[in-house]
Amino acid sequence: MTTTIRQTQIEADPTVPVIRITRDFAATPAQLMRAHTDPELFARWVGPDSLTTRIDHWDARSGGSWRYTASRAEDGQTMTFGFHGCFHEIGESRIVQTFTFDGQPDGVALETLRFEDLGDGRTRLHAQSLVDSFEERDAWLRSGMESGIEEGYATLDALLVNGDL
Amino acid sequence: MTTTIRQTQIEADPTVPVIRITRDFAATPAQLMRAHTDPELFARWVGPDSLTTRIDHWDARSGGSWRYTASRAEDGQTMTFGFHGCFHEIGESRIVQTFTFDGQPDGVALETLRFEDLGDGRTRLHAQSLVDSFEERDAWLRSGMESGIEEGYATLDALLVNGDL
Repeated sequence: MTTTIRQTQIEADPTVPVIRITRDFAATPAQLMRAHTDPELFARWVGPDSLTTRIDHWDARSGGSWRYTASRAEDGQTMTFGFHGCFHEIGESRIVQTFTFDGQPDGVALETLRFEDLGDGRTRLHAQSLVDSFEERDAWLRSGMESGIEEGYATLDALLVNGDL
Repeated sequence: MTTTIRQTQIEADPTVPVIRITRDFAATPAQLMRAHTDPELFARWVGPDSLTTRIDHWDARSGGSWRYTASRAEDGQTMTFGFHGCFHEIGESRIVQTFTFDGQPDGVALETLRFEDLGDGRTRLHAQSLVDSFEERDAWLRSGMESGIEEGYATLDALLVNGDL
């Protein structure tokens, strides 16, 4: 199954419980690496437009870890969603990390991000998210994750246009 | 496919690229947790009898990381194998961590260990190792990992009998 929303391709692997995301950016690999490892920059673009990201912990090195919350006001209440994981590897053009949504603490994804240099200041992001069952993978696909991912990448596009990276 | 060597069951899941290991110990869950999180104890039992483990880094907490080498003398040379990863979660009765063999730096496994209290001072270890392809999973199964795992657990049995935990 392949769903293309604007330039973002979100693909469910037919044989392993993996989601693959592919997205081109008008950026160098180094800029995309900064966008994913600098906590202030990351908080400015990640997630849907309706949520505000707050970094609670961020140690972007191989063997480090991270934690952030995303929140929005709703009916006079604040809805908050927490996420955390560890950084297995911060490489030259690859990030490997774990990912857990605090609302489902037993679920853990292994995420791999790879930045492919396309030349001429363009880079293709290859993101892969691996879980241990197709049920969990398909639940993520049904969760409406696509719009948050696409909105986040569009915000990252805007930061790049503004020269903020 | 199920291979039973002594009391250790090593199972390849037919539908996802997972290896599952099940092993009973004459130990409490707390003792098995210590055996997997205390670096001095861990170095004493893990791996095959032919290898000596040296801990290079060990920070056993959620968001921490680890690194060790296993070595043996061979033909007057020292053969050394390195391994590293991060600890996603050190829970009450569950450990989630990443695992990479330095000889195959692109390969990353997501490991989950669960300690099931069987009562009467016995605990069942459920270990699961998830990778992103069946090829990589099956290469691990062909690597002779079973003997190292079984020898390590037999050493752990001996530490328990000696009262070292």
